[in-house]
Amino acid sequence: MNYLNMSKPELLKERGALLKEYENYMSKGLSLNMARGKPSPEQLDLSQKLFDSLSSEDSYMSCDGFDCRNYGGLEGISECRDIFSKILETEPENVIVGGNSSLNMMFDTISCFMTTPLYEDTVAWYEVKDRKFLCPVPGYDRHFGVTGYFGFEMIPVPMNEDGPDMDVVEKLVSEDSSIKGIWCVPKYSNPTGITFSDEVVKRLGALKPAAKDFRIMWDNAYAVHDVTDTPDKLLNIFDECKKNGNEDLPISFCSTSKITFSGAGVAAMASSDHNLKVLIKRLQYATIGYDKINMLRHARFFKNYEGLLKHMDKHKELLAPKFSTVIKKLSENLDGLNIAEWTNPNGGYFVSVNVYKNTADRVVELCKEAGVVLTGAGATFPNGDDPENRNIRIAPSFPSVDELACAMDIFCVCVKLAAVEALI
Amino acid sequence: MNYLNMSKPELLKERGALLKEYENYMSKGLSLNMARGKPSPEQLDLSQKLFDSLSSEDSYMSCDGFDCRNYGGLEGISECRDIFSKILETEPENVIVGGNSSLNMMFDTISCFMTTPLYEDTVAWYEVKDRKFLCPVPGYDRHFGVTGYFGFEMIPVPMNEDGPDMDVVEKLVSEDSSIKGIWCVPKYSNPTGITFSDEVVKRLGALKPAAKDFRIMWDNAYAVHDVTDTPDKLLNIFDECKKNGNEDLPISFCSTSKITFSGAGVAAMASSDHNLKVLIKRLQYATIGYDKINMLRHARFFKNYEGLLKHMDKHKELLAPKFSTVIKKLSENLDGLNIAEWTNPNGGYFVSVNVYKNTADRVVELCKEAGVVLTGAGATFPNGDDPENRNIRIAPSFPSVDELACAMDIFCVCVKLAAVEALI
Repeated sequence: MNYLNMSKPELLKERGALLKEYENYMSKGLSLNMARGKPSPEQLDLSQKLFDSLSSEDSYMSCDGFDCRNYGGLEGISECRDIFSKILETEPENVIVGGNSSLNMMFDTISCFMTTPLYEDTVAWYEVKDRKFLCPVPGYDRHFGVTGYFGFEMIPVPMNEDGPDMDVVEKLVSEDSSIKGIWCVPKYSNPTGITFSDEVVKRLGALKPAAKDFRIMWDNAYAVHDVTDTPDKLLNIFDECKKNGNEDLPISFCSTSKITFSGAGVAAMASSDHNLKVLIKRLQYATIGYDKINMLRHARFFKNYEGLLKHMDKHKELLAPKFSTVIKKLSENLDGLNIAEWTNPNGGYFVSVNVYKNTADRVVELCKEAGVVLTGAGATFPNGDDPENRNIRIAPSFPSVDELACAMDIFCVCVKLAAVEALI
Repeated sequence: MNYLNMSKPELLKERGALLKEYENYMSKGLSLNMARGKPSPEQLDLSQKLFDSLSSEDSYMSCDGFDCRNYGGLEGISECRDIFSKILETEPENVIVGGNSSLNMMFDTISCFMTTPLYEDTVAWYEVKDRKFLCPVPGYDRHFGVTGYFGFEMIPVPMNEDGPDMDVVEKLVSEDSSIKGIWCVPKYSNPTGITFSDEVVKRLGALKPAAKDFRIMWDNAYAVHDVTDTPDKLLNIFDECKKNGNEDLPISFCSTSKITFSGAGVAAMASSDHNLKVLIKRLQYATIGYDKINMLRHARFFKNYEGLLKHMDKHKELLAPKFSTVIKKLSENLDGLNIAEWTNPNGGYFVSVNVYKNTADRVVELCKEAGVVLTGAGATFPNGDDPENRNIRIAPSFPSVDELACAMDIFCVCVKLAAVEALI
């Protein structure tokens, strides 16, 4: 039943059937949310013992001798630097452990470079009036929000199945010194769920940017977030950059927001000695130190990196059925209609659906009216501008499997209805 | 025994006696620290139950219905906004509860205005090439660090016993639109321990700055930090500013760093609707929300503002003997010598000592050699430049009373020795 081959009477008939189905859902007064990559209460419950991992009876001393209750320790406690160095695949000395938000560390990084030159012979980005940032699309709306806030022109770069289109990236970056960076979610990308291929990582590591202060914002948010038994592998960006004398290119970020508590986890970043020198110079004026007690709480909870990986298996158990529900529903309802495509990721938090051209906003609107909240259409593009109005990000983590199944049924009806409306 | 009236032989004899005393201390191999306003382990122990105030058995829901473990809640949970609104003497709606550091909130505030104009008809401070900030001296080195980092020329303003010299402030601020703000620790000021008089607060509230975007950075760090039974009273800056149509002038800050855990407390800020609009516009890109679990932990620990005040009584009990030891030792050792003056504050974390002219650095050096670490000479002035080389900040909180007594004996010997050396 390829919609594109249907006659007008067939489409009208199909619309009638879909409307009936849709109205049936409408009458149920549902309230379901697939908008944000929020862990479910059950996932948060997995870390419930984090509340007790540091009681008044326990030692509040870090292994490097900090009374974690008191001031100090700008770069974080050694226990956490060690664990995060393994997630970020670099040396503990190149890791700064932060507060509860890696987004905040990314924001502060861009904010730092806005007013502070990265090198003696470069200028603060504020001075670059036509500053630009590369934004692989579809991508993460909060990334685009940061560079949008700081007045960057955001240049969309197509995302392929193996990462950003490197022909485009290489050309732009080598030609235009006002391009200061690129946003990357290299593993289980937000929202497509794809992982950058070895070739893409190698080409990123070998970039020859016109701007000496071009940086790769490497948001490795889903580094350990598999949802299938065939996890993706990501090449080490630090190694690839070093091979090409590009060790200052990447700045890598991660957090436990989707490991322990989204609102009360621990974030970390890693980069070259040079970049960290510039960033720590700022940090030493910006704070006396991040929350070491929460770091210690996390270190005691996980014990070590292996403990953290074991913990992630429990998330996988909860998330795997949700991802398969999304894929199953999409497949059952939309296969063969020729109006939608979607990804089937091995990890992360999202499934990306491309609906029929120019109907994404209509699908989101129809869903909303039926009680299903989705990420706004266009959100995965800089300035909310999806030129084809096709991409919708599905976030399956928060609802229960039953709710999700219901929400996906509604979603699929809306995808079909919007397509039929457009085709008539 | 007024040193200034001594003859050279008398001074030489005195130096001999002092050197003997000093060498006696040297031989003891002491290691004492009065450098930073760090709470003592005993003070931190007062909040030990904070570790247990939110266990895995307790509800993690805030009173306004947040699952504090999850994302969201940019302005903080209502329980904490309420408590902090009472400390900062404003409405809860005008309070943002932050992470673990009020210094960080101040830094982010300046950072925000560096790249974002405060009004449609003003420019981002980065554009103001000769931007300046008023710095009452002696003052807090970390304040000066922030504006120094952002390239402000820092203009020292004399601190009187009732606050900054308002004649100077009014004149400068009304004449020069490149002056963008003033740093204030209005209660138990760092380091002098004085509290701004009603008249000073009234004159600050009535300022007519040439710069529409001039701001008062009101760091009310010691709002509830009394150490005597005759606490100071501070006039409400918000009220005074409002009376003069100046409600956008002040931005107020505080934290529990010296109430619960210095490294793992909760910070807050308050300001006018307009200022908060500008700051929250940034904040919504900078983070999804601060650590609500730590907020909830604090709210449960204190129960309410009255609970927090009761908790402060325990700090007073621990700090009062330390402050009186400092004052007693200064008085016993230096009264009548005519080479030093000091403050005798009713609260806060510091005693400010002005030693004999041009000897502060020598005193710090002598102390260091005898095992007593003080805040660096000059630290209380912008760029570390104390033109009279006289001011030394004493931080009595961290050492025990016995250690402090010993450290103060050494300090006084060093003050005398440096003065005698200078007078010979």
